[in-house]
Amino acid sequence: MAGLQSAPNDSKKFEANPLLTKEKNDLLTQTGPGTPMGDLFRCYWHPALLAEELPGPDCPPVRVQMLSERLIAFRDSENRLGLMNEFCAHRGVSLWFGRNEEGGLRCSYHGWKYDVTGQCIDVPSDPPERNSCKKIKLKAYSLVEKGGIFWAYMGDPAKQPPLPEYEICTVKPEQRFLSKRLQECNWLQAMEGGIDSSHVSFLHSGNLNTDPLFKGSAGNKYNIADKRPVFEVVDNPGGLFIGARRNAEDQQYYWRITPWLMPSFTMVPPRGDHPVHGHFWIPIDDERCWTWSFDYTGARDLTKSERESMEDGHGVHCKYVPGTYIPLANKTNDYLMDREAQKSGLAYSGIHGIAMQDASLQESMGPICDRSKEMLMPTDKGIMMARRKLFKAVTNLQEKGEMPPGLDPETHKVRSASVLLPRDQAYEDVAQEHLRASPGTPHASV
Amino acid sequence: MAGLQSAPNDSKKFEANPLLTKEKNDLLTQTGPGTPMGDLFRCYWHPALLAEELPGPDCPPVRVQMLSERLIAFRDSENRLGLMNEFCAHRGVSLWFGRNEEGGLRCSYHGWKYDVTGQCIDVPSDPPERNSCKKIKLKAYSLVEKGGIFWAYMGDPAKQPPLPEYEICTVKPEQRFLSKRLQECNWLQAMEGGIDSSHVSFLHSGNLNTDPLFKGSAGNKYNIADKRPVFEVVDNPGGLFIGARRNAEDQQYYWRITPWLMPSFTMVPPRGDHPVHGHFWIPIDDERCWTWSFDYTGARDLTKSERESMEDGHGVHCKYVPGTYIPLANKTNDYLMDREAQKSGLAYSGIHGIAMQDASLQESMGPICDRSKEMLMPTDKGIMMARRKLFKAVTNLQEKGEMPPGLDPETHKVRSASVLLPRDQAYEDVAQEHLRASPGTPHASV
Amino acid sequence: MAGLQSAPNDSKKFEANPLLTKEKNDLLTQTGPGTPMGDLFRCYWHPALLAEELPGPDCPPVRVQMLSERLIAFRDSENRLGLMNEFCAHRGVSLWFGRNEEGGLRCSYHGWKYDVTGQCIDVPSDPPERNSCKKIKLKAYSLVEKGGIFWAYMGDPAKQPPLPEYEICTVKPEQRFLSKRLQECNWLQAMEGGIDSSHVSFLHSGNLNTDPLFKGSAGNKYNIADKRPVFEVVDNPGGLFIGARRNAEDQQYYWRITPWLMPSFTMVPPRGDHPVHGHFWIPIDDERCWTWSFDYTGARDLTKSERESMEDGHGVHCKYVPGTYIPLANKTNDYLMDREAQKSGLAYSGIHGIAMQDASLQESMGPICDRSKEMLMPTDKGIMMARRKLFKAVTNLQEKGEMPPGLDPETHKVRSASVLLPRDQAYEDVAQEHLRASPGTPHASV
Repeated sequence: MAGLQSAPNDSKKFEANPLLTKEKNDLLTQTGPGTPMGDLFRCYWHPALLAEELPGPDCPPVRVQMLSERLIAFRDSENRLGLMNEFCAHRGVSLWFGRNEEGGLRCSYHGWKYDVTGQCIDVPSDPPERNSCKKIKLKAYSLVEKGGIFWAYMGDPAKQPPLPEYEICTVKPEQRFLSKRLQECNWLQAMEGGIDSSHVSFLHSGNLNTDPLFKGSAGNKYNIADKRPVFEVVDNPGGLFIGARRNAEDQQYYWRITPWLMPSFTMVPPRGDHPVHGHFWIPIDDERCWTWSFDYTGARDLTKSERESMEDGHGVHCKYVPGTYIPLANKTNDYLMDREAQKSGLAYSGIHGIAMQDASLQESMGPICDRSKEMLMPTDKGIMMARRKLFKAVTNLQEKGEMPPGLDPETHKVRSASVLLPRDQAYEDVAQEHLRASPGTPHASV
Repeated sequence: MAGLQSAPNDSKKFEANPLLTKEKNDLLTQTGPGTPMGDLFRCYWHPALLAEELPGPDCPPVRVQMLSERLIAFRDSENRLGLMNEFCAHRGVSLWFGRNEEGGLRCSYHGWKYDVTGQCIDVPSDPPERNSCKKIKLKAYSLVEKGGIFWAYMGDPAKQPPLPEYEICTVKPEQRFLSKRLQECNWLQAMEGGIDSSHVSFLHSGNLNTDPLFKGSAGNKYNIADKRPVFEVVDNPGGLFIGARRNAEDQQYYWRITPWLMPSFTMVPPRGDHPVHGHFWIPIDDERCWTWSFDYTGARDLTKSERESMEDGHGVHCKYVPGTYIPLANKTNDYLMDREAQKSGLAYSGIHGIAMQDASLQESMGPICDRSKEMLMPTDKGIMMARRKLFKAVTNLQEKGEMPPGLDPETHKVRSASVLLPRDQAYEDVAQEHLRASPGTPHASV
Repeated sequence: MAGLQSAPNDSKKFEANPLLTKEKNDLLTQTGPGTPMGDLFRCYWHPALLAEELPGPDCPPVRVQMLSERLIAFRDSENRLGLMNEFCAHRGVSLWFGRNEEGGLRCSYHGWKYDVTGQCIDVPSDPPERNSCKKIKLKAYSLVEKGGIFWAYMGDPAKQPPLPEYEICTVKPEQRFLSKRLQECNWLQAMEGGIDSSHVSFLHSGNLNTDPLFKGSAGNKYNIADKRPVFEVVDNPGGLFIGARRNAEDQQYYWRITPWLMPSFTMVPPRGDHPVHGHFWIPIDDERCWTWSFDYTGARDLTKSERESMEDGHGVHCKYVPGTYIPLANKTNDYLMDREAQKSGLAYSGIHGIAMQDASLQESMGPICDRSKEMLMPTDKGIMMARRKLFKAVTNLQEKGEMPPGLDPETHKVRSASVLLPRDQAYEDVAQEHLRASPGTPHASV
């Protein structure tokens, strides 16, 4: 695969425990306007809303908070999409109370009206000769629907990259399922969970045999049997491939390979014929993020039963507090801890459901975990490499104005994979074709 | 009318958008002890409690927070009224737990007892010869009942002005209705809503034809038809008259004239034969205020049906969370947003009820709105003039010790009015008698 | 009694109102790591958990917050007790989600396992030759069960004192009852309530004749009749005896003597044949504490009816929000204020139950009361002397490294007492034997 090259892999370095100072931790975790990581995030398209949230023309506007900015999203009478400052330019009233009608969103206080570009197009109380509205414009961002997701680009319009081409956006609707849930911690510790393939043998071990979207694959036995995965991390043009190998029979390794694309896209390696799972981790503010979760198949439609399992909160999805995207099991109710299930091994941590197993632990680290107190291990190599790559990209952007990796949609066309390989073969050499998106073909999966 | 003079009215100035710096915004919005605006507020009598809150001698004491001070109000055995520091001088226990009995409020911790002046009159554990209680006095303020309201004066006793003479206090009980509700934002943005006559044509437009206390007046049609009111603001001795004119037939203007009295009394211009509405906006702390709402009639009793409508939360009143003065529709439940009613036009913003339409938008600006980001228009002239007058009064008080306007009860005797006038006549010349309180006569109302 | 000596007793000094500056108040109230009072607290054993909270081997781990440290307590397979940092050394996940099994607590994220000393004993993902776990150890503290309580020592292991010998720990289980409740204020103002014998004549007066664990004692009538107790405070080796005398017939005084042991143990003087009550006041953080409440008898078992009363929340105990140690009557519901009961005298402050009468008033002072605004009286002598003793101990510890009083378990062997004495006799001379723990004998009680 072009651009795929081996990453520096000196295990001594990792054992040196590269703890993050408070300054470095702040740098990686803060994404508000004007922050270095905020600038980096604003180079990319990010998922902002599920298609269901703006179902049709003139539907109710929706409050969106992303990267510590408070925005309002709406779909106008002509189906154009708008994403702009939540507050009216006049006196600062929330446009969530606005009337979405006749080609724009009208503030309900004095009737000022804005189109999807944020341009004020009517100030009813103003004498026409003043024509004030021409001079009034709310900060607005691009919002585009693709693949069941409304994507936002919050950066410099002059540098807007082409639309994303993650495979989840390009498959047929019949092949995919999307959800999102509120996660009450910083985006980075959530994302780091997504590239941490080693915790599956513990935290999710009880689910490998019971979850309808995980159970029954041949590879599961290696996950359970070998709790000492060895990590091999290689660069790809948009991020990293994080390979974790476990011992298998016949002088083979069972490889699970997780792609990470800058800054916050991850994909779980597949299991048997199950759909493939993945995530986007999108900052709301510095202490909360949206965990976007998806499933898709490479070469067939999702079955009715798979779709029902997803809607029921199995796999990487969850049940909600009705009428919200807040998980039903959450911090306020101790995630519905079930000590019986913990004792019996049905749920390793006592928390039911793979999604909330991850979220509960990640939130227990605190809203922003203190990375000066960690004790990283060789199995955290993916995490260390991703941080390093983020640092480098942030520094290059700040100091040289160099655009970060992952903007070219070609770099999005990656896949996760699980494969059995002879022990003497490097996965990055052998598995290249499996790690490339390949419309209409199934994933490489054991 | 004596003292009524035209205010500077250079529209160019207003277009210059006199944004408030953070310092000026702080000055106008902070009313705690020792702040300049706090000093100004402490020159006046303010409504502190509804008569129903202290129904009789030795009734339960009531916690009162005003101007960022925590106070306790009580009515003693002899019906004397007390308003003093909430906390016992001994160890700081809240006197809300106190026993109101035998001529004073007794702390329930060690039995220290205070009379309505804050004077400690008993320290039971103290040997009589020590006579400690003589030296112990809680800070206390004047509290006086007038017109169904307990009025508080929290300033220098030597400068206590005569009791207020707002017409609402001087009419018979049969002619008035009073309510109050918690509003979760600074007093100033709430008050500014009260002198903003231009939003009626939008926010409340759905109610002009349906609210039993608004509908059916001849003037309503001008409110709906002409959404470009022109403002003429004139000084009055206690504040301002804010006149908003709309086009009417026969070379006439439909004038709606709103009096504002320093610092936080406003009155809505009347409609047909309906009772007249008005408000006091009283700071609790810098992020919350009490919105006092009243209705009264100039020359007749309120009807049973009017009174029932008010109790049901129509007009400027609202429904409550039972047992509280917290609106039932509030921030925690998105004000019971009804998108169907918004779509149909029944409720312009989707929020039901005039009171909560105002409160929801004012609260959506944030607890203290940032006036450095506004974009004021000629229709905001009343707001600009009121701020200017507040600035001037605060500055004069701080720098020269000059008492502010509006202390003389004669200045309270104003009325709102709605009138049709020939286009070539200035309302301040023609409508003078209508803007003066006139016991026993109906309001000038179209 | 050895070491018992009269404390300086110059009443003029107390009248001088020794107000605490903010600095001194901070010094006494802050107990987090590295604070002077935190250092003092860390010299002692403190109650951390009720025995019921860790009922058996491999039971669920329990979160413990004490002295502003977040800890996890567990009982391992061999019944050994652990109390250590709540968060895994690896990535900071809470060990509350951990699996308590096979001789240790295993983090559910990656399976790291700790024994009761905090020593990491397994890092499953780690190659055995690395043997990383030897170098990994969580900060851990001694946790020991004695007398139905798990006691924690959070100080320097080299200076760990012998286990406590408070009489409550040494009586048979049949003779004692223990409870704890969350109190939403700083430990010091809660503890000061515990040594304030004078408020009983007021706050709890309604309960002296009705509470099944208080009513009917001969001494109650003196509590009611003489509301001017005179305080005599004497040193004891571990703290103070705070004697409060009230007038009785026949030239006698009714003495109620409250022991306070450094830093936060207090015992209520007994009434008739009722069990004796006492408290520990243990900081959670600077704005909350655990109020530990106990009852025990010197020479007999508790009766079934006494135990039921305690379980029902009578005496110094309370009813809970189900499944928690949070009082059912609490700040969020105004402690279920009952103004009728206040009026009738059934509940002096309107709050039901002795425990919540105290807690409600102490919490009403604010999370940390401002002692620069107090007005102390001779009846507050116990409080003044205790503060003085705490200051002295903190200063000696900080400046000279001198260990504070109350570490020697012999000093724990105190009792409260209520006695009738001739007026010309000093209680510290006459009552010495009554103030000493005396297994198998009843308390001196009137």
